[in-house]
Amino acid sequence: MVAFSPTPRTLMGPGPSDVHPRILASMSKPTIGHLDPEFSRLMEDIKKQMRSVFLTENTYTLPLSAPGSAAMESAFVNLVEPGDKVVVCANGVFGMRMAENVRRIGGELVLVEDPWGEPVDPEKLREALKEHPDTKVVSMVHAETSTGVRSDVKELCKIAKSFGCLTIVDSVTGLGGVELQVDAWHIDVAYSGTQKCLSAPPGISLITFSEAAAEKVKSRNQPVQSWFLDLSLLMAYWDGDGGGRTYHHTAPVNAMYGLHEALAMLLEEGLESSWNRHARVHKELANGLFGLGLDFVVAEEHRLPQLNLIKCPDETDEASIRKRALEDFNLEIGSGLGVFAGRVWRIGLMGYSARKENVSLCISALKECLAG
Amino acid sequence: MVAFSPTPRTLMGPGPSDVHPRILASMSKPTIGHLDPEFSRLMEDIKKQMRSVFLTENTYTLPLSAPGSAAMESAFVNLVEPGDKVVVCANGVFGMRMAENVRRIGGELVLVEDPWGEPVDPEKLREALKEHPDTKVVSMVHAETSTGVRSDVKELCKIAKSFGCLTIVDSVTGLGGVELQVDAWHIDVAYSGTQKCLSAPPGISLITFSEAAAEKVKSRNQPVQSWFLDLSLLMAYWDGDGGGRTYHHTAPVNAMYGLHEALAMLLEEGLESSWNRHARVHKELANGLFGLGLDFVVAEEHRLPQLNLIKCPDETDEASIRKRALEDFNLEIGSGLGVFAGRVWRIGLMGYSARKENVSLCISALKECLAG
Repeated sequence: MVAFSPTPRTLMGPGPSDVHPRILASMSKPTIGHLDPEFSRLMEDIKKQMRSVFLTENTYTLPLSAPGSAAMESAFVNLVEPGDKVVVCANGVFGMRMAENVRRIGGELVLVEDPWGEPVDPEKLREALKEHPDTKVVSMVHAETSTGVRSDVKELCKIAKSFGCLTIVDSVTGLGGVELQVDAWHIDVAYSGTQKCLSAPPGISLITFSEAAAEKVKSRNQPVQSWFLDLSLLMAYWDGDGGGRTYHHTAPVNAMYGLHEALAMLLEEGLESSWNRHARVHKELANGLFGLGLDFVVAEEHRLPQLNLIKCPDETDEASIRKRALEDFNLEIGSGLGVFAGRVWRIGLMGYSARKENVSLCISALKECLAG
Repeated sequence: MVAFSPTPRTLMGPGPSDVHPRILASMSKPTIGHLDPEFSRLMEDIKKQMRSVFLTENTYTLPLSAPGSAAMESAFVNLVEPGDKVVVCANGVFGMRMAENVRRIGGELVLVEDPWGEPVDPEKLREALKEHPDTKVVSMVHAETSTGVRSDVKELCKIAKSFGCLTIVDSVTGLGGVELQVDAWHIDVAYSGTQKCLSAPPGISLITFSEAAAEKVKSRNQPVQSWFLDLSLLMAYWDGDGGGRTYHHTAPVNAMYGLHEALAMLLEEGLESSWNRHARVHKELANGLFGLGLDFVVAEEHRLPQLNLIKCPDETDEASIRKRALEDFNLEIGSGLGVFAGRVWRIGLMGYSARKENVSLCISALKECLAG
């Protein structure tokens, strides 16, 4: 069996993003036991780092030993019981996935839909809540990875709160790239991934539960349907140090080394500096794309700097351009999903990928590929 | 924030085991996209390797992007619908966890219990199935990590099949360390982990479904309650190469590099050679322990070579011995769980940890620690 040697790529798709060498190096350190006192201290550090990047005081802030889609499922299976009414704001793939989660739990789904490529309309949410005053949970996607749209989470959560609802916010692609304020914006559950603006490899995720959310979990009538994602069991595993922790599963030790390093790097840079860097590099990308005669799908005020949905010119085969960029330039850019399949490219500028040299390569490679 | 530098340990607990440097090195290779053609080829390779180590022709053989406890949940949520009768054979922590999975799904649980430290009694299973002829699924643990006991999976599955049941086998600690024959033994779902006899870091798991099991999943009346663990969605993601794959989640790219390398190493050594090595090194450990006046909990014919449950002498504080082994010798050995808490040590000889030098260190360190 020949050893696998991946060709080094520049990752400018919807994730994973380029992983910083510091993070790769941290993950190749020797594996220690998941109940080793040194690992318990690492877990404590990670929880503190996570509170800093989520801008929250939430006790129930922890990594999950599975990717972002499991974090989404964890948010819903813990907060929603069969029969609970849930308003899901959907304007892309990940909003629709939230709806599917509610269905599988047996929740009563109220879908508030907006067109793909547009943000969630706060007025539609308000109307839905007026019509369904018995709604218990409202969910939304902060940064829709499928469309490159940012929704106004602060405003949406304010509306949800005025109707007494708990709020779930998907910020898999948001955290670190654009402002996210868990406590100040009244978010009850927020989650994110490692492979976007944190620039660690994919595989694990980050989640935080407010006191109100934790209260809801504790007062459930039925156990959480997933044993693996049950918050109460997870907290007993992640809580305390040394002998105090209760065995649940075996934590992905080396992936946690990487998460710790990724969070350390984000905190060294500073959250605002990171948001500003993403905005600045996005501007450079936009200028370069305009120079090639290309344009965005999303209106300027709703664009995510870290994920850019670009219209493919009518006469161009989008797949062949991506194929050539990968084969000739080792440059990965993403394809469209759902209604955008075959019509757009998704260009990511997330975390360590949000660098001037990446923009430069992307523009010059696209120029050559488009010239045919 | 200071970088995390774990102290190198010798891992002889119940997992993770020592990770071979080849595997750590493979995981620090550059991250590529999860839809990159090179990654698709890696996924195809891994599925082939997995069929070789599980000794199966099953099409539905794939890694899961979460640890072994999620693989257990995946087996149950896919195969069991609410109201289905399930016989769970339990003789330790992981059998009891299976029972908890059945309860959370709303299955009708029939528990066949054997004392901790003893194997599952085939006659009890036969009696239970006579009493419950409408049983649909029978589950059991091949290698009980909490007790160091091997059960006779071949015989148990034969009985289950004679009653027309599907079989689920947990071989998280078994695979690679002792014989496991998925097809020849009529196992419908088997799963394992990376951090035991495969000697890769914890974080992902391996699972295989027979045609009959896949048929059951396809003919379900209700969708699988977990979106993240739904076999149909996972197979669409793992199937085919290049453009044929349907996006589900983002695979843990670097962890898959490690799994590929770990499976390659096991196949290079050969399955039988690996089983024989574990048996041989276990014998050396046993001789050393007898020399110290220590003894096993489990009767010789039911012992797992890779996980050894050792009685702690009455006058000895088991925790202080483990603490000293870790602090003075950087040697991790495990504590007891459940009924064995405080009364035993669990000494792992799994995968790369099953080496003569590890036995030597363990015996001499224990000798010194026990001398006080």
